[in-house]
Amino acid sequence: MISGIALTRHSCRHEVEQEVGRLLAARSRQAEAYGTHFADLWRIAADRVLGGKLIRPQLLIGAFETLSANPNASTRDSAVRIAAAVELLHYSFLLHDDVIDGDLLRRGKPNLIGAMLQERDPHIVVGPAGTPPASAKDLHWAHTGGILMGDLMLSAAHQVFARESLPESMRVRLLDLLDYTITESVAGEHLDVGLADGVIPSDLNTVLGMSRLKTATYTFELPLRAAAILAHAPRRTENAIGRIGRHLGVAFQLQDDLLSTFGDAAEHGKDPFSDLREGKETAIIAYARLTSAWPSIEPHLGRSHITHEEGAEIQALLITCGAERFAKSLIDEQIGACFEITSSRESQISPELAQLVGHLVESLEERRS
Amino acid sequence: MISGIALTRHSCRHEVEQEVGRLLAARSRQAEAYGTHFADLWRIAADRVLGGKLIRPQLLIGAFETLSANPNASTRDSAVRIAAAVELLHYSFLLHDDVIDGDLLRRGKPNLIGAMLQERDPHIVVGPAGTPPASAKDLHWAHTGGILMGDLMLSAAHQVFARESLPESMRVRLLDLLDYTITESVAGEHLDVGLADGVIPSDLNTVLGMSRLKTATYTFELPLRAAAILAHAPRRTENAIGRIGRHLGVAFQLQDDLLSTFGDAAEHGKDPFSDLREGKETAIIAYARLTSAWPSIEPHLGRSHITHEEGAEIQALLITCGAERFAKSLIDEQIGACFEITSSRESQISPELAQLVGHLVESLEERRS
Repeated sequence: MISGIALTRHSCRHEVEQEVGRLLAARSRQAEAYGTHFADLWRIAADRVLGGKLIRPQLLIGAFETLSANPNASTRDSAVRIAAAVELLHYSFLLHDDVIDGDLLRRGKPNLIGAMLQERDPHIVVGPAGTPPASAKDLHWAHTGGILMGDLMLSAAHQVFARESLPESMRVRLLDLLDYTITESVAGEHLDVGLADGVIPSDLNTVLGMSRLKTATYTFELPLRAAAILAHAPRRTENAIGRIGRHLGVAFQLQDDLLSTFGDAAEHGKDPFSDLREGKETAIIAYARLTSAWPSIEPHLGRSHITHEEGAEIQALLITCGAERFAKSLIDEQIGACFEITSSRESQISPELAQLVGHLVESLEERRS
Repeated sequence: MISGIALTRHSCRHEVEQEVGRLLAARSRQAEAYGTHFADLWRIAADRVLGGKLIRPQLLIGAFETLSANPNASTRDSAVRIAAAVELLHYSFLLHDDVIDGDLLRRGKPNLIGAMLQERDPHIVVGPAGTPPASAKDLHWAHTGGILMGDLMLSAAHQVFARESLPESMRVRLLDLLDYTITESVAGEHLDVGLADGVIPSDLNTVLGMSRLKTATYTFELPLRAAAILAHAPRRTENAIGRIGRHLGVAFQLQDDLLSTFGDAAEHGKDPFSDLREGKETAIIAYARLTSAWPSIEPHLGRSHITHEEGAEIQALLITCGAERFAKSLIDEQIGACFEITSSRESQISPELAQLVGHLVESLEERRS
């Protein structure tokens, strides 16, 4: 998502990876006592967490370094541990999302569910969601692994937050933040599925609110607010950076929707047309719904198979009806709102923090080209 | 499970109900900010938690009172809050189990998934698992609710443990216990599904180990150990009562298997023959597998529909092959092991605690009649 940008004074990727690896190794060792299948589940999960981009923890540490004038070593260690926990939380959300969406791939490679299917049958080809390529029992077994590993990751993330040896008030602020984040993210996922399943009527505001809840809160607001709390920043700064996080998160999500819908599948690693096939209610679709092109677009959405030609046709319709342009203008609005906050005297954003926000916006804009 | 027995000096059911209700009300209020569907999900969940027997929290408070000579009011309040969290954890496990098993009923009434289906279509008849009576989208929506509410309950349970204002060492012991409990329970569920899906080969030891992990740890060991920790009991007592909890838990699970297989469906409230239909690997089935009756029993198991006549035939076969008698003898062994611990001088079990264990065994034996 926001790769390829130096968010910290020195790269902290290695440091984060070590801490996440330490957490996972301890739990994987424990798991061995419960038999090979449970140990396998942990191994598959650990490979996938460590193979990820670890963006959220790096954002947390980057912001923490920017916000702390002179962090002592112990607080910095806490920041690294909380950052690692944020990654476990992220993976827990991914796992349950994949179960709910029936996805077997992530970034073009088998996700945990796909890998579990391959363990059952090495000859299986793990492809896009839709027709399950495996037996019903194997698929049930793999989905069960996804649900249960999601629970274990969610628990592990809480354990890190709960055990961190910090002043009581700081610990409670972090626990409040974790609680708020999970409520928002789960409410967002619930809304997303409600829209896709036709339970909740779609309109533009609902769709935009959904993407803020489902992704922006935990991807941007959580790391940035956690950094502010750990850096002893005043509430006002925490709130300002939290609001910036929400705007950035919505902008990145819109950018992600644009890439999924119009981008090169080989590059972004998702199923081509997976959003269209799932009938995903993105801002692009919600806008298209209001235009005269909608009757031509609607019949194609939510179908289990979309050919390359059909996909290209829907893309062309979404461009000519103005949905692509609309999503781009929304991104500009969100970026404008970020800069309004950084430049407002009231939010007391330091020049260093404003610079970090600037970097994030740049990395977003680079993805547009 | 262990209803109808006074576990505490004065009934604490009302007290537990109030605390659980308070926790749920706070979260339900928060949920309203995210729209009616999310608020509905909380309402349905809260109704079901409060409609439960609240056995685990009552066991915790009963043991806490027995173990504390003179509990001060503040520690007792902590015990009530931790007890309430144990109930939320239990409900989180139930929700994810129901999603995994495709169950729509619990104690003869629609579970959260069944209730969500009824919200979509009030005319739907929510029956036993098997053929879904609802549209694929409605079923997907209801299962999503089960997964997400399970996540919220799991998070809420952690939040209570993490926030409890207790001496650091006690808080860490409780967090260790929570972590251990979740690992065991999830490993047990994973094993259970592996056995049912034919991924893990069934043998008697694996099946008995599974039921200890999946149910005994969180239903008995967790409340009893938590009570010991909160009552400042020495480690030795905590370990002794923990072992008693495991034996009791296995005995209650075996009793539950006997009731599900041979008992009166109208009384125990489950689907008749649901264990047989799901192909559930109970100790009864694992024993029958070793007898000459197995070839006559096996073809009936794991089928989506079992008639009343077929069910009665399998029951008769399981009795004549000795599987019922075997399960009863295992229960006696577990009870024997409990009394061995209470009467051993080394475990330093007080007469009051031994009496509590005696009451629990009595309530188990009453269920046999």
